[in-house]
Formats: sequence, C-alpha cells, structure tokens
Amino acid sequence: MSIRIIVTGGTFDKEYNELTGALAFRQTHVPEMLRLGRCRADVVVETLMMIDSLEMTDADRARLIESCRHAREPHVVITHGTDTMVETARALATAAPSGLQKTIVLTGAMVPYAFGSSDGLFNLGSALSFVQALPPGVFIAMNGRCFEWDRVRKNLQTGVFEAS
Amino acid sequence: MSIRIIVTGGTFDKEYNELTGALAFRQTHVPEMLRLGRCRADVVVETLMMIDSLEMTDADRARLIESCRHAREPHVVITHGTDTMVETARALATAAPSGLQKTIVLTGAMVPYAFGSSDGLFNLGSALSFVQALPPGVFIAMNGRCFEWDRVRKNLQTGVFEAS
Amino acid sequence: MSIRIIVTGGTFDKEYNELTGALAFRQTHVPEMLRLGRCRADVVVETLMMIDSLEMTDADRARLIESCRHAREPHVVITHGTDTMVETARALATAAPSGLQKTIVLTGAMVPYAFGSSDGLFNLGSALSFVQALPPGVFIAMNGRCFEWDRVRKNLQTGVFEAS
Amino acid sequence: MSIRIIVTGGTFDKEYNELTGALAFRQTHVPEMLRLGRCRADVVVETLMMIDSLEMTDADRARLIESCRHAREPHVVITHGTDTMVETARALATAAPSGLQKTIVLTGAMVPYAFGSSDGLFNLGSALSFVQALPPGVFIAMNGRCFEWDRVRKNLQTGVFEAS
Repeated sequence: MSIRIIVTGGTFDKEYNELTGALAFRQTHVPEMLRLGRCRADVVVETLMMIDSLEMTDADRARLIESCRHAREPHVVITHGTDTMVETARALATAAPSGLQKTIVLTGAMVPYAFGSSDGLFNLGSALSFVQALPPGVFIAMNGRCFEWDRVRKNLQTGVFEAS
Repeated sequence: MSIRIIVTGGTFDKEYNELTGALAFRQTHVPEMLRLGRCRADVVVETLMMIDSLEMTDADRARLIESCRHAREPHVVITHGTDTMVETARALATAAPSGLQKTIVLTGAMVPYAFGSSDGLFNLGSALSFVQALPPGVFIAMNGRCFEWDRVRKNLQTGVFEAS
Repeated sequence: MSIRIIVTGGTFDKEYNELTGALAFRQTHVPEMLRLGRCRADVVVETLMMIDSLEMTDADRARLIESCRHAREPHVVITHGTDTMVETARALATAAPSGLQKTIVLTGAMVPYAFGSSDGLFNLGSALSFVQALPPGVFIAMNGRCFEWDRVRKNLQTGVFEAS
Repeated sequence: MSIRIIVTGGTFDKEYNELTGALAFRQTHVPEMLRLGRCRADVVVETLMMIDSLEMTDADRARLIESCRHAREPHVVITHGTDTMVETARALATAAPSGLQKTIVLTGAMVPYAFGSSDGLFNLGSALSFVQALPPGVFIAMNGRCFEWDRVRKNLQTGVFEAS
C-alpha cells in the first residue's frame, strides 16, 4: 500500500538560522523523521516547495493539485503550514468534479520538528495511518484527530484545529 | 470518539536507572507523549501493569482482556512490549466467541521513549489514528504499518513486524 | 565555591511561540539546564532581564554592572545574546578603576536551548567551569574556548567568537 | 591550546541495542557531542577502548597511562565510567614519581548521552574547560564541580561525586 508524501514546507520544516537568528527553510526533515519512526510503510517523498503557508499562492496550489493528480500512489500525505491548510484542503477537494479519486491527508506541526518540543513526529505517524485506513477524500489530520476538509477550521485564538 | 489507552509497559516505557545502570520501569511516559503530540483526541489513560512483555503471564493477559471488555470506550490502544505483542493480540482476539466488539490496536517501540532516538511518539500517533479509522477487531500498529492480529509476526533477526 | 548566574536573555533562552510562529522570551531555561546537567556546584540564578542583546541599552548594562558589583558570590556567569556580548564584557571590565574584583564569565548560545540542536548546555557547563578556575577578570566563554574581554570579537560572517 | 580526548567508554557512550534490548557500546558519541557544542577548541579524539569501567583491568589502566604519557598535547580529557573513575585517577596520579606533567581531567555521565536526559554534554563542556584552566595534575570533573584525584569519592548511595 504505497503512499506519496508531498512536502510543501510550513512550521513543520522550519529551522533556526544561526547567523541571522531567524527561522528559515533548508531541507525537509521528513526523511529523517521516517528514519526515527523506523517507518516500514512503502513511502515516496517529494519536495514540491518549501514555503510558509501564508505565502502560498493560487499558482502554488495548482501545482500541488497537479502533483496529487499525477501521483501513481492511491494515498497522499501533504505536509503543510497550519495557517492556510484548510484553504488548500478545499482547493484539493474542489479540483475535479469527481474528486481526485485518492485519499489525501494534510498534516503539519504547531512547533518546528527541529525543536525538541515538536508535535511533528506524532502528527506524521498519525497522517500516515489515517491515509491508509480512510476512503478516498480530502482530510486534515492534526494532533490525533482527523477531519473532513469541509468540517474543520483552525481556531486562531487557540491555534487548535476543531470541527466547524 | 473516545479512546482508552491501556499501558502494560514494554520497551516503550523503560528508563535508565542512574544508580544501578540498568533499564527499569517507573511511571509511564504516555501522558507526557500525549502532551508533546498536543493530542486533542478524547483519550483516557489506564496503567494496568508495567512489565517486560517476556514476563507477561496468562493471568496478566486475562486481566488485560477484562480491562478491554469492561472499557466503556469503543476504541482501545494497548502499549505493549514487542516480544510477545503477537501472542497478546491472539489472546485478545480469541477471548470471546463474537470478539470484544471493539477496535483494539496494540503498539510499542523498538527503543525506549526516554531515548532521543525512539520511534515511540511516531507509533503512538499511528496507533491512535488507526484505532479511530478501523472497524472492530484486533490489530498491531508498528512503524507506520497496521496488521490484523493473525497476519503478523515479529521477525526475530531484524526486529521488524511483517506480514505472515 | 558559590556562583551567581545572571540571566539576561539572548538566543540561549528564546522559544517558539506556537500562536504567532515567532521566537520570543518566556522564562529562562537555566534552572532546567542545571537539572539536566545534574549540577552540584553551589549556584544562585538571578533573572535580571530577558531581552535580545541587540536591544540592550546603556541603562541595561548599568543595571548589570550593579548586579555584579553587589553580588556576594565571587564568581559570576552571565548568559547573554552573542551579538553584543563583547560590548557588555567591555562595559563590565571598565566599570571600576580596579575592576569588580570578581571572576565574571559571559556565555550564550548559537541556537536556542529549546531547540534540540543547541550548544547551550555545553556552553553553560563550560562557563560554570572557567568561572571557578580563572582569576578575577572579565571573560567570554563560547564553544569550548575562553577569551579575555579585550582579546575577542564575534566574526559576523561565520558567527564564531575568535581572538582579536 | 590543544587537548587530547581519550575515550574509554562508560555510561557516557552506552547505547540501546534494538534487537537485544540491552545497553551496549558501538562507536563513541564524543565527535557528535563536539559538533553539537560547536566546539572550537583544538581537540583530538582518541578511542582507546569502549568498556564498562567495572571491567577495566590493571592492564587497561596501564595502556591509558601510556596514552597520556605519549600524548603530545599538554591537556588530556578522559571519558570514563563513573564506577571506577576515582581508581583510574589514582593510577594516573601515581604513575610517575614526578607525575605525567600534564593536566588530566576525567569525566563521564550519570545517564548515557544517547538518552535525552543525559548530563553528558554539560560534563564534556565542563571537563574541556577545567583542563584548559587548571595546572598540571589529575582531576575529576562531574556535574559542575572539579576535584583533585585524592580528594573525591563517588557516593554509592546517591551516585554523586563528593569531596572526601
């Protein structure tokens, strides 16, 4: 049961730049996280972009839709910033009249994986599991819960994804 | 969708004893792991025992079956040592003519959570997700894969759970 | 041999704010670091300020000089941002005609302690050791080396403290 | 100011063996720790042996004395198990009528470095600093304190090194 992980960046993959003191992107941590999780699922990792989700444009979302459409794997996990994750989920779900015929699960992290206190490894384990067990559709998996794309919002006061 | 996590010990929860230099059990790390994963699922943690799974007796398994039977939650995750996880899964699956009418997922870790290099957080996120998405039955979730109780074995040479 | 640790903030103590996605200060990590290092030295921790060293004013430095002057301990470690550490060391060294009659060691980190990849614990162990072994004076201890206050600079290209 | 780090094993370097579930030695973690500490001191690492200090024989100690004697560096840090660290310090101090004419600092850890909760990085930063600042002699640096070889013992009840 093969799975494609499409990396788009987000908090998940931010790192501390020692020279500037700012958070920035270098390479994705997903392969390292799969090693740490000793992941034995059949997984392919594709780094599509490395951006903050607040900077994701319609053109970026169109590229992501194309990647999902052309993926040979029936299961796709997308790592994504939390700020516009719901918006991207909607774009994916409405991309085709009959849907993309795949199970697509978006996930991310509240704290960068490179920080000791990150929820990233937990969320990645969760997303890789929901994507194997759920039927075709677009879902968001965060912090142990999974939502259909049109029944979730990010609570901006608490930072928590909740049913809408 | 409420979930009961029943803790039995295993590598998952082993710690380093500074005075003796040996690995030993103190308290379970599951609540700390749920905090790290910022878990928002509705979860109850029950520490049933803290033992090495090689030392688990038939009486211990009978207690575990009773805990599962009496749990009010329809979903149960069991943290368990890997050495006899398959044996316990079989005991649970064959405990009642019609099964326990619950979705039960056993999980564990190759390396103690207290070690930086543990797969425990990944596996816990995975088990909590499979248990929500799968139908009633007994499953083993390890390292990104999920197996029905009667189609899995631990490969003693590699330490990996694989289809049997 | 008692030591006062005066906390001023700096990269050392920065944390990730989950809601804003920015780095910010909350409480100092020094007590937690001393626990992790199982520090048995006789240490008092004083949080004087929690600021980025680029924002440290002359008034802030005057307060720091007063704290050092009034400290009853003969050994003082100061945690400090790296950007103006050399400037603060100079202010301390020239604060009194005959010096402050104490051994003062400034230290910091290239990466926040809360990040898994931080040099903070190594530097804290180092500074606490140099301060016990060196004669009165003002020093900077970073990344395994120790410099007198007037023989060091931070190389802005590499981020490394080096002899000047 | 160059420093030789001689690795002998000890708790410091123990790892968890995933297949056997036991603690064992593979390679030393000292180079990785120096990278994490972004150590800029002039350091050479020599792995002399990888053993539990309870198994260290007189022949092993003779090899260690020879390594110290022949080291071209005037400063030597030795990583060592805590159980017989005092005994090895005595052997080094009494090895030559006039001593080894070097500053030698033994250090170790209460918890393996590979565990998240290790004091190893703190102790390594400390030992590398004391060795640069102290005069010739044999010392033990543990948990922020430094003792002359003949004025220290390990308290077996508490695990703490204390003045004797």
